[in-house]
Amino acid sequence: MTDPASASQPLPATDEALAAVVFNADGLVPAVVQDNTTGEVLMMAWMNAESLRRTFNEGRTVFWSRSRQELWRKGDTSGEVQWVRSAWFDCDGDTLLFKVDQEGGGACHTGARSCFFRSFEGVVGAGPGGGTASGLTS
Amino acid sequence: MTDPASASQPLPATDEALAAVVFNADGLVPAVVQDNTTGEVLMMAWMNAESLRRTFNEGRTVFWSRSRQELWRKGDTSGEVQWVRSAWFDCDGDTLLFKVDQEGGGACHTGARSCFFRSFEGVVGAGPGGGTASGLTS
Repeated sequence: MTDPASASQPLPATDEALAAVVFNADGLVPAVVQDNTTGEVLMMAWMNAESLRRTFNEGRTVFWSRSRQELWRKGDTSGEVQWVRSAWFDCDGDTLLFKVDQEGGGACHTGARSCFFRSFEGVVGAGPGGGTASGLTS
Repeated sequence: MTDPASASQPLPATDEALAAVVFNADGLVPAVVQDNTTGEVLMMAWMNAESLRRTFNEGRTVFWSRSRQELWRKGDTSGEVQWVRSAWFDCDGDTLLFKVDQEGGGACHTGARSCFFRSFEGVVGAGPGGGTASGLTS
């Protein structure tokens, strides 16, 4: 995590783009996080205006924890920092997409590479990226 | 759309998996839709229990339109049917991920391949999939 290539640096965003973001009644917007290299969808979490601003200022994902009701700078306790390589918003402005370089073992608090490690068919441990084993680790 | 490979057929789901889905206070769960081949994130929409059931029964995405307050079987009016190839749920059970084969020009009502066609940096028309031009079409 001391790799200079991953040092914290601001991510550019136009005022027009920032103004296009639509927060819900709770002041939140869902943010999908995708691995910048593999395309694997790693997780979905929520941002408020402050966490979005900090994400751009620091170039790493900062969410709003609905369960803890506090800012959640991803990786501060787990080491699973997500360095944002590009940031996108959808046609309605009410969903965000961040393409990231994922530090550590993965994005999921279970130890899985992706939070989406269980399929409805009953497959466990194979990531949705297409067969790479990315299951639970100790 | 008459390709036999894309005919409507049920998608398997275990009772355990279906029971793990957590709907919010409005009875909805966010569903991320990803291109099964390219990995491009196409859109995010919402499902209620009925639309989720129909998605598995028909093997294609069915959402709940919050703006119209009605079931929205993707592609019925646009032709942009999404055939589900695999379905995943996250560690908390409160976000779904569908990997699909996208029919038609794209997933977005604007004509774009992905709803995430605008970056915060001001890039327009390049999909987040990694540089493939997938911008607005007439």
